[in-house]
Amino acid sequence: MNPPVIACLTDFGQQDAYAGILKAVALGGAPAARWIDLTHEILPGDVRHAALTAWQTAPFLPEGSILLAVVDPGVGSARRPIALAFDHLLAIGPDNGLFSYLAQANSPQSIIEIHPERFDLPRPMSRTFHGRDLFAVAAARLATGSSVESLGDPVATLTLLPSPRLEHDDELGTLTGEVIHFDHFGNALTSIGALHRESELIQLDPWLRQFPPVAFSAQRITVAIGEVELPLLETYAEAPLGAPLAYIGSSGLLEIAVHGGRADNALGLRLDDRLQLCYKG
Amino acid sequence: MNPPVIACLTDFGQQDAYAGILKAVALGGAPAARWIDLTHEILPGDVRHAALTAWQTAPFLPEGSILLAVVDPGVGSARRPIALAFDHLLAIGPDNGLFSYLAQANSPQSIIEIHPERFDLPRPMSRTFHGRDLFAVAAARLATGSSVESLGDPVATLTLLPSPRLEHDDELGTLTGEVIHFDHFGNALTSIGALHRESELIQLDPWLRQFPPVAFSAQRITVAIGEVELPLLETYAEAPLGAPLAYIGSSGLLEIAVHGGRADNALGLRLDDRLQLCYKG
Amino acid sequence: MNPPVIACLTDFGQQDAYAGILKAVALGGAPAARWIDLTHEILPGDVRHAALTAWQTAPFLPEGSILLAVVDPGVGSARRPIALAFDHLLAIGPDNGLFSYLAQANSPQSIIEIHPERFDLPRPMSRTFHGRDLFAVAAARLATGSSVESLGDPVATLTLLPSPRLEHDDELGTLTGEVIHFDHFGNALTSIGALHRESELIQLDPWLRQFPPVAFSAQRITVAIGEVELPLLETYAEAPLGAPLAYIGSSGLLEIAVHGGRADNALGLRLDDRLQLCYKG
Repeated sequence: MNPPVIACLTDFGQQDAYAGILKAVALGGAPAARWIDLTHEILPGDVRHAALTAWQTAPFLPEGSILLAVVDPGVGSARRPIALAFDHLLAIGPDNGLFSYLAQANSPQSIIEIHPERFDLPRPMSRTFHGRDLFAVAAARLATGSSVESLGDPVATLTLLPSPRLEHDDELGTLTGEVIHFDHFGNALTSIGALHRESELIQLDPWLRQFPPVAFSAQRITVAIGEVELPLLETYAEAPLGAPLAYIGSSGLLEIAVHGGRADNALGLRLDDRLQLCYKG
Repeated sequence: MNPPVIACLTDFGQQDAYAGILKAVALGGAPAARWIDLTHEILPGDVRHAALTAWQTAPFLPEGSILLAVVDPGVGSARRPIALAFDHLLAIGPDNGLFSYLAQANSPQSIIEIHPERFDLPRPMSRTFHGRDLFAVAAARLATGSSVESLGDPVATLTLLPSPRLEHDDELGTLTGEVIHFDHFGNALTSIGALHRESELIQLDPWLRQFPPVAFSAQRITVAIGEVELPLLETYAEAPLGAPLAYIGSSGLLEIAVHGGRADNALGLRLDDRLQLCYKG
Repeated sequence: MNPPVIACLTDFGQQDAYAGILKAVALGGAPAARWIDLTHEILPGDVRHAALTAWQTAPFLPEGSILLAVVDPGVGSARRPIALAFDHLLAIGPDNGLFSYLAQANSPQSIIEIHPERFDLPRPMSRTFHGRDLFAVAAARLATGSSVESLGDPVATLTLLPSPRLEHDDELGTLTGEVIHFDHFGNALTSIGALHRESELIQLDPWLRQFPPVAFSAQRITVAIGEVELPLLETYAEAPLGAPLAYIGSSGLLEIAVHGGRADNALGLRLDDRLQLCYKG
């Protein structure tokens, strides 16, 4: 069997060695583990961005991976440390909403509140760096074969973030959503998803399961954001250079881009901006 | 035998988990592969910088490494996915010029257009993230022993970037080049190279092979850029603190630095600025 | 036995592939080594920040790790390349002060000046990139079982940075220190440390050993910086949102933060700002 992957997601930035220290602690406890740095550039304390990234990444992690996610502005307070078991991966981190989208899209089999007194910590736990003193240690335990159940006790609920806006009006043939993230290229990810396209048929299988699936034809779709109307295309190069487009992004979310440019700047978009996809245009 | 290295070079940035997802996909297909993040901070779509970095890095990769390079502004368009076999490494990525300098300096043994239908993709290919859905999968195949030939069909040509300016006037004893990159320290890398020094003899073995080798004495060399004249020294500390110098950089290119400072700011240099080395001063 | 860890700390930034090239060279020489990127975002040439990070990180590295630290503004000059043996790890890099705090807090068993002619370098050594051409090669040798002694000759002294300010006035009951670093979250790390708290007793075990240990009660402590008085709390959430606090940070240094904000901006702090802890308030 392959040694497990620990995939790490934090807001520690890269100027300090905090993320490297997490890896050092985890490899100390699980010498054979394979480590993936997903990102350490979540904006400080931005749990929503962390939740989106965890959801976006999980399907691509090897079977049996451990997702170690530490965006933890409430460290040292009453927020619970948790471990989750999903079908194909385990997750560990603070219970502050950062597993919201992952858990809404993939029901967890177990939700465990971690009780650090159940296992040997290599050193006393600081009050401000549970990533190092608790979560990385617990991730190493999982990577060496411990179950999530061995880390603590089952609990019934998980802290959830409010879901991003996504509304469906079947009569008008509209889906209304909002901008939830800008990626490194300035592309806007929106809450309209997850969309799957098979030639001319597009299916929306709501990723947070707020309402039943919707299917519609790819013909005559328009997307409107502010004053701008956008065509739904398949890739950047189908729009003229410098022109905006909507497309189904690589995570299945409707995205907005500018061919050869940045949609955030060129269109003056902001987080939470509302947009509408109309499929009965 | 040691498990192969996959060395990865992208413009994905580090705020999103895209680079981590590439590693996850590659380790999913090639669990024993060793992974090196070369950089994910190529400026978005800057194929020239990617080409320079690929050329600069290749000689230091362990024998048999796979260079996975994804700077792919034309993703989803007609640009070809390719795999290259060189003497000591394999390379994979879009055929948009990013292997130009590497291929000009080290003739590839094979140039293969990848045909994704030739091998099992683990999931349908998105139109906007071939790094994840095609290139990382193909890199994992190479890392588990497949040949580049198994990925597709040979093609005769590779897309090449225009070569950076490099002119030699033997009568005047001048080499004329241009600034092609600023590194993290503000040092300017130029197209005058590759230079090799053996005590007082300097040899220019043109890295892109535009003209025959040149040899000259290290005595009486001057380098001029704009209004500034620079001495050719061996290392930063040979110049007074705050003073500019030219030197043969660690990649063999003529570089311009300021001892204890930043040449880009201090000398007001820009990309494509022209400079001249005179060896008959 | 587990293959050794090489933990790497540089100021190379992440836009160039220089840090990846170090890893490539090290894995070329020590194929089984496990690699940790601690940080490559030390400010260019900031030896003090590098020294702090080395000290902060060392206790968390697995037994037998090799700390490869390359912040080397004097590369190519007379500064010595060195290797150090500590109780639980080895360290390698330029002798410019970057091992100061590590060595002051943990006396090295050996200090070795590296003589590159003692071992095979895979290629001629450049004058400006000893990280790649010397230190990564030497780290790989250590990772494959060579001793630090095999790299060169013992020397008696190590270059030391001036110690950060830390003064104790037992009569007034004050510790006076200064801000030595701001982390990614805007928290200020100070030279007042290392502090250990056991319920109501706080012990200062001076990390650079400038004076004997101090012990005092956690009751009635105040911390003053500029015009601001701060309570000593245990974690961020004990202060009202937006309020400043002092606390014993995860490295044992007194730190200053703002709950839910950035102390650097909110309090207008700067490096070297002086602060005072009074324990006889």
